[in-house]
Amino acid sequence: MKNLLLASTSTLHGSDYLEYLLPELKQHFTNCKTILFIPYARPNGISHEEYTEKTALAFAKIKLTIRGIHEYENPVEAIQNAEGIFTGGGNTFLLVNELYRNKIMIPLKETLEKGIPYLGTSAGSNISGLSMQTTNDMPIVYPPSFQTLGLIPFNLNVHFQDADTQSKHMGESRETRINEFHQFNNFPVLGLKEGSWLEIKANKIVLKGNLSAKLFRKNATPIDIAAESELSFIQ
Amino acid sequence: MKNLLLASTSTLHGSDYLEYLLPELKQHFTNCKTILFIPYARPNGISHEEYTEKTALAFAKIKLTIRGIHEYENPVEAIQNAEGIFTGGGNTFLLVNELYRNKIMIPLKETLEKGIPYLGTSAGSNISGLSMQTTNDMPIVYPPSFQTLGLIPFNLNVHFQDADTQSKHMGESRETRINEFHQFNNFPVLGLKEGSWLEIKANKIVLKGNLSAKLFRKNATPIDIAAESELSFIQ
Repeated sequence: MKNLLLASTSTLHGSDYLEYLLPELKQHFTNCKTILFIPYARPNGISHEEYTEKTALAFAKIKLTIRGIHEYENPVEAIQNAEGIFTGGGNTFLLVNELYRNKIMIPLKETLEKGIPYLGTSAGSNISGLSMQTTNDMPIVYPPSFQTLGLIPFNLNVHFQDADTQSKHMGESRETRINEFHQFNNFPVLGLKEGSWLEIKANKIVLKGNLSAKLFRKNATPIDIAAESELSFIQ
Repeated sequence: MKNLLLASTSTLHGSDYLEYLLPELKQHFTNCKTILFIPYARPNGISHEEYTEKTALAFAKIKLTIRGIHEYENPVEAIQNAEGIFTGGGNTFLLVNELYRNKIMIPLKETLEKGIPYLGTSAGSNISGLSMQTTNDMPIVYPPSFQTLGLIPFNLNVHFQDADTQSKHMGESRETRINEFHQFNNFPVLGLKEGSWLEIKANKIVLKGNLSAKLFRKNATPIDIAAESELSFIQ
């Protein structure tokens, strides 16, 4: 009975933090008053307090209260008692490290499998996959494992963009990196563009937003998937 | 008595593999006949054999023979007996994992500290720093540690580029990522652009090529460093 919303990005260019998602979130969190916020990914290194405050301001627009998990003495209980949960973006290595350090990876998985509504953006969406190994982030800390929640039977690559064929930069394209991933790992990777999100209700996965996504499978040509497609076939 | 050449990239746009470095390499490896090649980073997932063959073709132009470390039964002895060593680019997580798995991280460090001439490109340069934590690569495998050779008293960020101020993409810029790194780590990071390399003779470090580099320090504004600058002040 999962009830997840996994967005590629929190913020679209030229728009406020979470703005494009607010109508969606109002519905998604319709039975909630307070959302538990997990600020561990700390974008730009901002503090848990600053990140939670920023998020509270955005959620106030849809009349929802935000409380940061760092405000609770017992983070496991905070997860287990939450009406709804949001994990924000930032650095995925840091986020995963903190989830393990605070021993909430398993409680979070169990709680979300029971149907507590969840929002992930960027790093907060990455952790819904089988592993964090298709993150774009720098390994600024060393987590005890790369394994993540496994709420979907594949990995995400968020902020996905097709290779810029005009570029003279010789760093690897996103596609090259994902191909390297598939030399050592078998499960599919979905490249989710900014403005796209996955809506997961029970076991039904739908690609939302106006853009296509790109599906990468080991030893196969990547395929474009149209917006509004059902993705439950991916495994 | 270190003798290292650490390049941001193996290949410039519109030019052949290693081409721009060949005149430099001829001098650098002047007393060598055979160079030991470490192909572990496997760019695009190519095999050790393919990568070594490609590298042998490039080095043949300056009359040097290449042998891949995978051809030796004992990789530690291969390192200890090498006349010169080259570690190619690809995925840094994979490279570091293989260096640990084959137990050559320490022998490689010791050999290079004795003055055996070394070339690193991209991932092969990353490993010369204190840690691999400023790599741009995807964590496709889980290495036992992020610690690397520490031949220079700072970290490198290779394929460095300044933020594209015209971009509408909301993924983090290189500078943002390095700032996040500095929330948790104290040592400096040098952003090395494609076409730049460091020349290290004993303890003298010089920025070579025509481009500036960018020096990031914790709690400090990044500074541009001109080509041909001496960098031994960085620690």
